[in-house]
Amino acid sequence: MKQTIIFGSVPSIISSAAVGGKMEGEGPLGQYFDKINDDPYLSTETFEQGESKLQKEAMLHMLQKASLKPDDIDIIFGGDLLNQCTGTTYGIRDLNIPFLGLYGACSTMAEGLICASAFVSSGYAQKAAAVTSSHFCSAERQYRYPLNYGGQRPPTAQWTATAGGALCVSAEGEAPFVRGCAIGKIEDLGITDANNMGAAMAPAAWSTISAFLRETNKLPSDFDMILTGDLGKVGSRLLCELAEKENTDLRSVHSDCGLMLYSFEDQDVHAGGSGCGCCASVLCGYILPKIQRSELHNVLFAATGALMSPTLNQQGETIPSISHAVWISDSRE
Amino acid sequence: MKQTIIFGSVPSIISSAAVGGKMEGEGPLGQYFDKINDDPYLSTETFEQGESKLQKEAMLHMLQKASLKPDDIDIIFGGDLLNQCTGTTYGIRDLNIPFLGLYGACSTMAEGLICASAFVSSGYAQKAAAVTSSHFCSAERQYRYPLNYGGQRPPTAQWTATAGGALCVSAEGEAPFVRGCAIGKIEDLGITDANNMGAAMAPAAWSTISAFLRETNKLPSDFDMILTGDLGKVGSRLLCELAEKENTDLRSVHSDCGLMLYSFEDQDVHAGGSGCGCCASVLCGYILPKIQRSELHNVLFAATGALMSPTLNQQGETIPSISHAVWISDSRE
Repeated sequence: MKQTIIFGSVPSIISSAAVGGKMEGEGPLGQYFDKINDDPYLSTETFEQGESKLQKEAMLHMLQKASLKPDDIDIIFGGDLLNQCTGTTYGIRDLNIPFLGLYGACSTMAEGLICASAFVSSGYAQKAAAVTSSHFCSAERQYRYPLNYGGQRPPTAQWTATAGGALCVSAEGEAPFVRGCAIGKIEDLGITDANNMGAAMAPAAWSTISAFLRETNKLPSDFDMILTGDLGKVGSRLLCELAEKENTDLRSVHSDCGLMLYSFEDQDVHAGGSGCGCCASVLCGYILPKIQRSELHNVLFAATGALMSPTLNQQGETIPSISHAVWISDSRE
Repeated sequence: MKQTIIFGSVPSIISSAAVGGKMEGEGPLGQYFDKINDDPYLSTETFEQGESKLQKEAMLHMLQKASLKPDDIDIIFGGDLLNQCTGTTYGIRDLNIPFLGLYGACSTMAEGLICASAFVSSGYAQKAAAVTSSHFCSAERQYRYPLNYGGQRPPTAQWTATAGGALCVSAEGEAPFVRGCAIGKIEDLGITDANNMGAAMAPAAWSTISAFLRETNKLPSDFDMILTGDLGKVGSRLLCELAEKENTDLRSVHSDCGLMLYSFEDQDVHAGGSGCGCCASVLCGYILPKIQRSELHNVLFAATGALMSPTLNQQGETIPSISHAVWISDSRE
């Protein structure tokens, strides 16, 4: 059993878009968002409706940037952190596009990109989209405490990004190209602290990254960047330590979306950003355009997800995690 | 944009298994389950842990029936109704198999079968599994009321099955074969009553079934059975009426898993069964073996899912629904 897939017919990412909230706009990547929403409700009545609007906006910007109509898309793969993935279902329901729902927690953008690429590469879709989002206010009250409660956040806690990302994979097109992927296994090393997701997810990231490197006979230095989803400060340090134990130096090429989205000096985000929208917006707004312009040549995008629920966590369960990796390149071969 | 995929290289379903709870064992299909669990906790401490054990048991029975080891499976596609799909993640985490998580509500088994078939048909996996579950006790308290509250159920309400189903799709093997599928679009006709899922889902079922028939130039009479997931009494009647309005008679070939799993005379299930485990167990335990023995030749399995969440429902939102259809046959061509 191998975790790695190398795509025979190499699909192209022909469009991508990122939308964010006020804090994301004020962060170091603010200028790379297609739209910043200062209103956390996005002119809706609830945070959850606001989150679904993030996905709708991300999809519409993505379509518009490539002059696509909803009808041009054969399948959308999407999901998010909200119970029953309602950010996606309510966000895209008006688009009238065949839809396969995903649940990968914060790894959703990588999972969607893998599924979209597999369906396009095999000819079962000409164009397939992936979309996801997260919202600080809807996530806090669902996973932790109502915002009004003002619960204190420990230093290991991460800040759920208010952001959405969407991309379109096509059988024909220019760079970036999706060359391959590694599908993650569930890793669970016994972390139970829902305020320390980075520690829970780091082993999953290393498991998938090391499987991909081993199965493709590649070295970290074959990539300009090995980009994890949102391990934050704690998880990023753990990832590099796990790699070091197996004689692999990731430090020179490792970046983490959760460390890139906010300014640690000016923004109170503790261990860094998180949420499906974090790595989705960093990838769609910042990284993919860089690969398109060949400022980056080969990126291994390893999004990570903590697959816990508050219910099971309150029942004393540990936090199973997963990471899916996608090899994105500026060349077809 | 077409919703239908016809698989070039036709994958085979080489094994399937169904596990159920006490009520499912006492129903008309009781003898077709691989295992019946009289204990709703399945010897765990909570209903949620019990549900995850349903998926583990379904996977293990499925593997054992085809003399497969977990290592033989390249990917599992799975999901369920619990928040963050924890039935699947906790159920399969020990199996150490690459995993792509799905959220399709009660349509999950069809979605998993589509994804598994696509990955196998395209050569990206040799063997791919699909797994799902539902549990009356965990679903009631998550979606409606705590069981102890004893809330009254209206006649349109359906009974969430305590059941799990798993199957394995392989590049090589005998019947049943997965010939094609139609990927559903989100349909939302404005139903807001979470106790009338059948009415919410019927338009989605008809949308997908009619798209498949239209795009493949087939008639209902080309199938021994058009099998919807869990529309129950209300939704099944609506589906046939919707078809009739477009001059299609489904009544002679239509069956519904939600109408098959329980006895309406002896079991107090109101409008019928529901939940991811309902159509998964009926398909995996009863229908697939019938196709394997050529007692059924061509079945269009159209599972349906209501993509709402209690949160959004309480915010006054309507219930978006989806249906994915899979054409399963006893012959390759």
